[in-house]
Amino acid sequence: MKEIAGGVCAARGFRAAGIHVGVKTHNLNKKDVALIVSDTMCTAAGVFTTNVVKAAPVLVSRAHLANGKARAIVCNSGNANACAPMGKENALRMCDAAANALGCDSDDVLVASTGVIGQMLKVDVIENGIPRLSGLLEASAAASDAAAHAIMTTDTVKKEVAVETVIGGKSVRIGGIAKGSGMIHPNMGTMLCFLTTDCAISSEMIRAALLETVQVSFNHISVDGDTSTNDTCIVLANGMAGNAEIAEKNGDYSVFVEALEVLCTKLARMMAKDGEGAKHLITCTVQGAASGKSAETISKSVISSTLTKAAIFGCDANWGRVLCAMGYSGETFDPDKVDVHFASAAGEIAVCEQGQGLPFDEELAKKILTEDEVEILIRMGEGDGSCTCWGCDITYDYIKINGDYRT
Amino acid sequence: MKEIAGGVCAARGFRAAGIHVGVKTHNLNKKDVALIVSDTMCTAAGVFTTNVVKAAPVLVSRAHLANGKARAIVCNSGNANACAPMGKENALRMCDAAANALGCDSDDVLVASTGVIGQMLKVDVIENGIPRLSGLLEASAAASDAAAHAIMTTDTVKKEVAVETVIGGKSVRIGGIAKGSGMIHPNMGTMLCFLTTDCAISSEMIRAALLETVQVSFNHISVDGDTSTNDTCIVLANGMAGNAEIAEKNGDYSVFVEALEVLCTKLARMMAKDGEGAKHLITCTVQGAASGKSAETISKSVISSTLTKAAIFGCDANWGRVLCAMGYSGETFDPDKVDVHFASAAGEIAVCEQGQGLPFDEELAKKILTEDEVEILIRMGEGDGSCTCWGCDITYDYIKINGDYRT
Repeated sequence: MKEIAGGVCAARGFRAAGIHVGVKTHNLNKKDVALIVSDTMCTAAGVFTTNVVKAAPVLVSRAHLANGKARAIVCNSGNANACAPMGKENALRMCDAAANALGCDSDDVLVASTGVIGQMLKVDVIENGIPRLSGLLEASAAASDAAAHAIMTTDTVKKEVAVETVIGGKSVRIGGIAKGSGMIHPNMGTMLCFLTTDCAISSEMIRAALLETVQVSFNHISVDGDTSTNDTCIVLANGMAGNAEIAEKNGDYSVFVEALEVLCTKLARMMAKDGEGAKHLITCTVQGAASGKSAETISKSVISSTLTKAAIFGCDANWGRVLCAMGYSGETFDPDKVDVHFASAAGEIAVCEQGQGLPFDEELAKKILTEDEVEILIRMGEGDGSCTCWGCDITYDYIKINGDYRT
Repeated sequence: MKEIAGGVCAARGFRAAGIHVGVKTHNLNKKDVALIVSDTMCTAAGVFTTNVVKAAPVLVSRAHLANGKARAIVCNSGNANACAPMGKENALRMCDAAANALGCDSDDVLVASTGVIGQMLKVDVIENGIPRLSGLLEASAAASDAAAHAIMTTDTVKKEVAVETVIGGKSVRIGGIAKGSGMIHPNMGTMLCFLTTDCAISSEMIRAALLETVQVSFNHISVDGDTSTNDTCIVLANGMAGNAEIAEKNGDYSVFVEALEVLCTKLARMMAKDGEGAKHLITCTVQGAASGKSAETISKSVISSTLTKAAIFGCDANWGRVLCAMGYSGETFDPDKVDVHFASAAGEIAVCEQGQGLPFDEELAKKILTEDEVEILIRMGEGDGSCTCWGCDITYDYIKINGDYRT
């Protein structure tokens, strides 16, 4: 497996485009609608927000995926089309407009939105823009880049990855673009992720592969504990790689899932690192937990702890907050068996052994925590469970960005 | 019932003191040890942190309360004595020192600590200071004030309330001091609260009254979702009011619990309002939920939402985040039946009706949210459940305070 260029256009038979149509009114340079299209019909699957309050496009896309097939994804940023008048109607109008431009069935178009909640979507400007958007569709790295930018809200960097692997002797490519930033939490925070692959894989297997992958990638990140109304992760598979269709959990399936996991984990880390205002990517690895589930719960609790996030922002090796967050995770364990280390490119330092503080070199600790990417390593001595989750620090900029988001 | 002066010294037969002994080394003017003593033996009860990682003083106080009796409370700030070497030994040494000074049994002394986790407590300076502290014990408002200051960490205002009611024809007083600020969350965040009363009430009933009260006061506040290792709420009742002892859940019990609830709710609101760096007290009232429990879960989810807290900091009527936080609370409900209003001393404004945004006067909304105390009112149309919880906004100062707490 190797990383390749091209994002959602890396896989054969996929084209994309992204333009500004006017949903974002503050800055005319900011793209706000993206279109991703396969030349042929795809097997497809989606994972959506667990929030009881679901945005209209989530409901529409879920319905359109009922048959396990789709050909295109249309997405706007700048307005979430959630809790908004005419929500479902407007989401359907986006599908219709894309279907008209592409000459396909409206049911084969998936739709997603991200942005402010509760304001009516200016669907007219999207409808008016879609013919132009469709005319710009291209199978190029530049086109994927445009689509990746068009789905961004407060993201500061675009999130785009593609990989190539070999399945049944054929080269298979998978690419993806994503947006994250705020309202990010395990069980799908406002994140959008659109994945394309030329792998031949059945509807059942692409769904199984997506669920398995989301569980260990996007569901292992947190920015602020707020799970949004719009979270959507969609994969389209058009089979153009020419491999024998994966229709069961065989060796080919494992190779595909492995590649999908590598790709989605990269996107998930990018989201965590680009959490609103974040200065640090925090990786928390728990080993020796009573079970994998216990390790996951504890690791998520640590990366979600506001106090731990604030300590990392301050490059302060305040491991007491790590133990504290483990303790209120809901899991039971013996605190007197817990070891904690901090690590980064600048080194590794033991700060807590058997539940008690160690004397440590504060200068070295500060140096380690000053790096962009820092790790919290926890050993528990309870069993064989392990898990890695990703989060970010909380900064002045997070408050600034979110103190006045609507206006 | 009426509010009176005197704090923990308002009830008959209680004395208090607070001094600087040297646990806090940065500022010699900051008191760091408090002592609260009853002239006679008390029935007593405590509620402690649910965190699996419990500080040593929590374990010691819980053991000392096993017989439902106590006479004194000794508390230091500046060091949590949690995950620290010699934790239990040092907590016991604090009890021994107080017992020696007071001439009582060490088992009748309760102990609490608050401050940084993981550093060994300088118990010597506390032991050396206790004779002087004990010499300063007084039954005065000034003495309660000194004790209230001595338990503060990052609190900006002291928390002290007392009330007087009539039980069985006798005047009964209850007083309390508390500290809050960071690491505050439902199910006891780092909060300490020490309550004294001259009510005659059995060990069983004082315990029942405390549990009932904590559930609707301290367990309804959140500052940052972090439940600390040290949370402690203790009540001492010495019976000096001369009322017939409350030994069952009769009318007198109800009067006592009502007074205790008023007092604890005031202290809880003070804690939420003085959350680290907070500019706003946020009160969220949910009505019409499927059940009281459902209303509580939803209300807590709203006041705990980092994005909602950031919006209130920015005086931004971003009600979409309120709906979103309701939606990921874990409760099921119909979003299309939800109404949301914002209110404060400056007025009330409807922003969401039947799950959808209303056009509203942004200027008025801003004016309402600029007040120190703001309310989020939610009506759900599901049933009769209602609940009120309290939280605070998240500000630049929260990040500043917590980015470098240890050093």
